[in-house]
Amino acid sequence: MSCVFCAIVAGDAPAVRVYEDDEYLAFLDIRPFTRGHTLVVPKQHTVDLTDTPAATLAGMLAVGQRIAQAARESGLHADGNNLAINDGRAAFQSVFHIHLHVVPRRSGDKLAFAKGMVLRRDPDRERTGEVLRAALADSDTPQSD
Amino acid sequence: MSCVFCAIVAGDAPAVRVYEDDEYLAFLDIRPFTRGHTLVVPKQHTVDLTDTPAATLAGMLAVGQRIAQAARESGLHADGNNLAINDGRAAFQSVFHIHLHVVPRRSGDKLAFAKGMVLRRDPDRERTGEVLRAALADSDTPQSD
Repeated sequence: MSCVFCAIVAGDAPAVRVYEDDEYLAFLDIRPFTRGHTLVVPKQHTVDLTDTPAATLAGMLAVGQRIAQAARESGLHADGNNLAINDGRAAFQSVFHIHLHVVPRRSGDKLAFAKGMVLRRDPDRERTGEVLRAALADSDTPQSD
Repeated sequence: MSCVFCAIVAGDAPAVRVYEDDEYLAFLDIRPFTRGHTLVVPKQHTVDLTDTPAATLAGMLAVGQRIAQAARESGLHADGNNLAINDGRAAFQSVFHIHLHVVPRRSGDKLAFAKGMVLRRDPDRERTGEVLRAALADSDTPQSD
């Protein structure tokens, strides 16, 4: 299998999963900018904004919104989030299976954020995954399932 | 009126508009990272991901997808786009009316992109607006109206 995100969806590659439904999977970015940096992917493979249906993007963003909210309400103590889609190699897309980045932010973390762009590591990924999964399970406003 | 984006929507503040329908308005960022950097806003005021309905986000992203496509297909010659929502002050949100950034990118423009973060100017905004409006008018795949 040549697409690493398809391999993760299929269970053939490892990932710390934080959310899953019939159409989407969310898992921790293996090289996080900040703690809790999550990727949301549609299970069906498409590449970028040129071939992904608007309805698929809508569902992907609804999952991202729930994760952003979970980051704010959980032990991750986020004060905000950057959500981003990098559409094409020219825009820094590096895996050619469309995905939404959810990057939890804390007030005054600008330096940590910039450092994270270079270092990109989480000393306790498993714990971070647990915290987000628990917050999502507590969420009573599902919007995509 | 205290919200500058509400003032733009109402026509009380100037903007180079590139797209409008009943629910959304898109206009050029006054301090663009790259040429064609556009903001998409819902006309109804909400602040961030904590108070904006998922359906509103879906429509906002559908408009953003059309603009990204227009940037690729038009005289802007984009090879890709960064789409981003900055959710909260901690995430660099500076206007507290939710908005989607669409930042057209060209292959190899990393330095120009980085410079744009500091300089943020377009020498011919009116022309950039015309190019995007024309490409959107030519688009035959409306997804949000």
